[in-house]
Amino acid sequence: MIIICEAKATEAQINAVESKIREAGLVVHRSDGAEHTILGVVGDRIRLDVGTVSVMPGVRDVVPVSTPYKLASHEFHPENTIVRVGEECLVGGMEIAVMAGPCAVESEEQIEASAEFAAASGARILRGGAFKPRSSPYAFQGSGIEGLKMLRNAADRHGLAVVTEVMTIELIETVSEYADLLQVGARNMQNFPLLTALGHAGKPILLKRGMSATIQEWLMSAEYILTEGNPDVILCERGIRTFETATRNTLDLSSVPVIKHLSHLPIIVDPSHGVGNRRFVSSMARAAVAAGADGIMVEIHPNPDKALSDGPQSLAFEEFGLLMNRCRIIATTIGRRLGKAK
Amino acid sequence: MIIICEAKATEAQINAVESKIREAGLVVHRSDGAEHTILGVVGDRIRLDVGTVSVMPGVRDVVPVSTPYKLASHEFHPENTIVRVGEECLVGGMEIAVMAGPCAVESEEQIEASAEFAAASGARILRGGAFKPRSSPYAFQGSGIEGLKMLRNAADRHGLAVVTEVMTIELIETVSEYADLLQVGARNMQNFPLLTALGHAGKPILLKRGMSATIQEWLMSAEYILTEGNPDVILCERGIRTFETATRNTLDLSSVPVIKHLSHLPIIVDPSHGVGNRRFVSSMARAAVAAGADGIMVEIHPNPDKALSDGPQSLAFEEFGLLMNRCRIIATTIGRRLGKAK
Amino acid sequence: MIIICEAKATEAQINAVESKIREAGLVVHRSDGAEHTILGVVGDRIRLDVGTVSVMPGVRDVVPVSTPYKLASHEFHPENTIVRVGEECLVGGMEIAVMAGPCAVESEEQIEASAEFAAASGARILRGGAFKPRSSPYAFQGSGIEGLKMLRNAADRHGLAVVTEVMTIELIETVSEYADLLQVGARNMQNFPLLTALGHAGKPILLKRGMSATIQEWLMSAEYILTEGNPDVILCERGIRTFETATRNTLDLSSVPVIKHLSHLPIIVDPSHGVGNRRFVSSMARAAVAAGADGIMVEIHPNPDKALSDGPQSLAFEEFGLLMNRCRIIATTIGRRLGKAK
Amino acid sequence: MIIICEAKATEAQINAVESKIREAGLVVHRSDGAEHTILGVVGDRIRLDVGTVSVMPGVRDVVPVSTPYKLASHEFHPENTIVRVGEECLVGGMEIAVMAGPCAVESEEQIEASAEFAAASGARILRGGAFKPRSSPYAFQGSGIEGLKMLRNAADRHGLAVVTEVMTIELIETVSEYADLLQVGARNMQNFPLLTALGHAGKPILLKRGMSATIQEWLMSAEYILTEGNPDVILCERGIRTFETATRNTLDLSSVPVIKHLSHLPIIVDPSHGVGNRRFVSSMARAAVAAGADGIMVEIHPNPDKALSDGPQSLAFEEFGLLMNRCRIIATTIGRRLGKAK
Repeated sequence: MIIICEAKATEAQINAVESKIREAGLVVHRSDGAEHTILGVVGDRIRLDVGTVSVMPGVRDVVPVSTPYKLASHEFHPENTIVRVGEECLVGGMEIAVMAGPCAVESEEQIEASAEFAAASGARILRGGAFKPRSSPYAFQGSGIEGLKMLRNAADRHGLAVVTEVMTIELIETVSEYADLLQVGARNMQNFPLLTALGHAGKPILLKRGMSATIQEWLMSAEYILTEGNPDVILCERGIRTFETATRNTLDLSSVPVIKHLSHLPIIVDPSHGVGNRRFVSSMARAAVAAGADGIMVEIHPNPDKALSDGPQSLAFEEFGLLMNRCRIIATTIGRRLGKAK
Repeated sequence: MIIICEAKATEAQINAVESKIREAGLVVHRSDGAEHTILGVVGDRIRLDVGTVSVMPGVRDVVPVSTPYKLASHEFHPENTIVRVGEECLVGGMEIAVMAGPCAVESEEQIEASAEFAAASGARILRGGAFKPRSSPYAFQGSGIEGLKMLRNAADRHGLAVVTEVMTIELIETVSEYADLLQVGARNMQNFPLLTALGHAGKPILLKRGMSATIQEWLMSAEYILTEGNPDVILCERGIRTFETATRNTLDLSSVPVIKHLSHLPIIVDPSHGVGNRRFVSSMARAAVAAGADGIMVEIHPNPDKALSDGPQSLAFEEFGLLMNRCRIIATTIGRRLGKAK
Repeated sequence: MIIICEAKATEAQINAVESKIREAGLVVHRSDGAEHTILGVVGDRIRLDVGTVSVMPGVRDVVPVSTPYKLASHEFHPENTIVRVGEECLVGGMEIAVMAGPCAVESEEQIEASAEFAAASGARILRGGAFKPRSSPYAFQGSGIEGLKMLRNAADRHGLAVVTEVMTIELIETVSEYADLLQVGARNMQNFPLLTALGHAGKPILLKRGMSATIQEWLMSAEYILTEGNPDVILCERGIRTFETATRNTLDLSSVPVIKHLSHLPIIVDPSHGVGNRRFVSSMARAAVAAGADGIMVEIHPNPDKALSDGPQSLAFEEFGLLMNRCRIIATTIGRRLGKAK
Repeated sequence: MIIICEAKATEAQINAVESKIREAGLVVHRSDGAEHTILGVVGDRIRLDVGTVSVMPGVRDVVPVSTPYKLASHEFHPENTIVRVGEECLVGGMEIAVMAGPCAVESEEQIEASAEFAAASGARILRGGAFKPRSSPYAFQGSGIEGLKMLRNAADRHGLAVVTEVMTIELIETVSEYADLLQVGARNMQNFPLLTALGHAGKPILLKRGMSATIQEWLMSAEYILTEGNPDVILCERGIRTFETATRNTLDLSSVPVIKHLSHLPIIVDPSHGVGNRRFVSSMARAAVAAGADGIMVEIHPNPDKALSDGPQSLAFEEFGLLMNRCRIIATTIGRRLGKAK
């Protein structure tokens, strides 16, 4: 921790800060500049709260030095993490992982058609919502366990892994029976009891970025899972809330290179929720691959106009097929590849 | 629902939209303007998704007509709701409800001193965190049930009601034994399973605004609780996330008159979390009362510099006393009053 | 400047940074912590760019130490600045300055009625737009010099000072003939050539906060004016852009105590532009006074429903009168007062 | 304009709104739904302000129907606009236009080296700042006319066009002598007098998006230029301000497909200012091309560590060359191409 005193700080004020630091059992180094006195604090940050010091009289700024997310940090883990999902799919390696499927599981036919087309296009993971978080209590809430079964069966028929959302601690066990990758939704990114429980789930976690989460907070949420002993966390950018209303969220694609710089965890992008309108999804999916994402998650539907949930952001199969062909070439320009069609 | 077609929409495109509406069992009225065709849809909005129509070719905009939060809406409930908390405190009436206490319950002495001073200053409800959500897994996580007991005992000794946070469904029953008002934290504002469960809690709910929640989403979350049969929801503004970093959040005081216009539910303001720095808390607490809030929630601590959690935003007793005296006068200018000292 | 090196920074990387600093003619102090090496730089910040260092290999963070706005800073100017506007009005002292008038000057009758009522209610400064910035090229663009003349004459008849916006450098001279306080609109807060020219205008400046300006950037814009030799800058909070759409902007009232902490310049609040809807203006004007603002600027109109520009946010006289009575009492709670009625 | 009345609106309130509309000389169609009365207004929107109606008692929402930017709109101009810059470069056609060069013109050698490498890599337009807007009055303000001359000469030697910023009306003529494309900076996007003047400049305009401008406001600013008779406007996405601080701005790449949907004007992307850190620039430049941008503007510098202005975001030549090779392939996946090397 580094403390920058105000230019007008009195000696008594500075001494009070020094005492506060020593009381916490920490060592302080003082350096008097032309204008400002700087105090450097050595020792365990947990023993002294940044905020407590920052409101002391005579203090202008307090700058934390140590990273608040050691386990998630690239600084302390130079090797990139590769997460195995299901039997075959590796996320974070040379292959870009494509996750595709409908927003919500609606019927045997819908999910079978989606799985078949996804696999044939080179996707590796089937997505589909069974338990759905909805802003309105009057909206379709998902198909539950029946949906999970349909999802698993369709995936198995086509050699795909399964990703789906876990909304509560109670559902972790049930969902784990059917899914290979447990998704934490954006609204739960700071549901700390859920994160802690997922640290013991024995399955990899897909951690979506909260709608208003900074990249640092996102990595601190990953840290919750890692701390509990689960090393397999994949991050998922899905758009942040800004003043712009032309798209549902603002997809922050720059989070891709930033996460690559700060962390060893893989990061994928969900352009469907990011923009919320199928007109713009393919464009942003291509951009995600070009930006260096380790995967994309795309909503597809055999008949988007009839979808019960988030149909407007689902791609029709034909457009998804075209998108995959384009991404296949884009991936090669940065030394990566998409999965082969099955 | 009103559909505005593009100026260049073809007759075939407009017909397709009309068919879509009729397929959903709804009635459509068409009006051809000089530039744009407008389609008015009459009937139950649930049967046709706004998004589905909005991505159809030839459609420029879709405007929902019906309010997405009927139970929370002033339009359908002209009378303001007054929520009883504990035996004596009414929130939403003429008296402005003051909730005060430490961020986290730390010790018998700390909470007793806080309760005594709060009651003596005219506060009606004692606040204190027992189970704490923390962004970092390495931070102090709260005192749990022991904290709840201390909180209840201190409140009882001074004739105060108790408000504290409920973080998970499993904790509702336990917390309800000790608290009169169950707080939903900002990070849980869209934790829908929790909201649904709280609809059956049999206690009033304090629903904090999510860090990036629009006022409409906030009211839709209240609707979740109301729909389940619990009419006693108090809203709490606690700051939203913006680009400004000089304060922890940006306290959106304009939400007070906006909520008063849109809803019949009471609204209080939490300036402590809004600004995150005790230097600015009193100023914003006074502003909240002047703006017309039905209450304020203020963190106080017998020794803020020693607080284990969020000490930097806690007021010392003396400053809180001065604040109460000022708010007492401000309240009278808009025909309201603060509680009498005990 | 303080440089925090990455935990994994090599000795060669740290040496390169040290050389870079010395090349700029600055002195560097190195401190090796358990995890991180910290480099303290002493000397003139202008000679070494923060950004240049921050992208060097092995560097994690660079923290500037010196304030980027020395002249505007409280640190270096402990005394609060009081700005004289016109003959009689002092902004920043004990009296809270009220500026009132229509959004745009429309007619002799309209501005005369506004001036008369404003003066009778205790306002000290007459506001009114003559040259208007409008987002749409198709909107009413203002009454120009004729408007300025009407404004001046009406103000003189009622002993008021005049504030109005200056949109371009060319207009400074003309507007200065008629106005006592020159307003820089939110869209021009970073129009640096205009700011520089206003530093020589010989009149006090009302600097509105840009729609997406941080408080630091706002103070740096004030610094542009101060640097050129004009010490009379009044800041004006008028709302920032956030994701919330229920109000036109989000009025950031916490900027009032923050500015009081960081700067010696007076700050006023414009609730009319902040919320953009007359239903919410009085509430936020009261809150501004309670928060400690040195003044408020309120749009009033003899017949708001007929206003040519921003009518929806203008208060009718009766409501304004009621507001002034309330603010008069609120001001006393913090040891201040409103102007007496003329 | 469509007016949605409140469910509880009285007949008298609705009649008052109808009268207001008729007074403005407009025709009103009334439709009484089960819950809400809807009023459709036919005629010239300019005659009746949306805001004025929206605050009338009994009115819940007012929805504008006509587009506020007719000339910039795709709805009324189905053909995409192709803008000629200089002799040879077309922006908005099949070829993706690359603009490259230093942030600020610093010396003959620097700009010559940049122009040579840019041309050799396939760029078509040389960028370089001569008059610079700077947030701090103490920062380097640019090289002025000398810089313009160096820029023009270097461009001519290598067959490039020139783009540079125009900060004030007075500079338009001077800058036009040397530049082929006049840039409006983000801070000037709503400097309406400047936009109006540029409508008569006789040169194409590069209109950067304001830091907090919605896409609609951006197009309305383009409309200012188009209305005055200058049809050659190129839009430039350069990042918006959000709560995220890991990057300088949040580059909103989804604006690319959104603008393509709403407007016929070309859109390019400036990733250098968008992220503000060279580590992340190449990634976002590739993403911009993949997203479908009509061009990119990239800062390059022969020696980025020595740059006087914005060096931290400038690419070294080698990295820029690699980027161009990658973008060349990405472009082909969407049927486009980059310029050939000279």
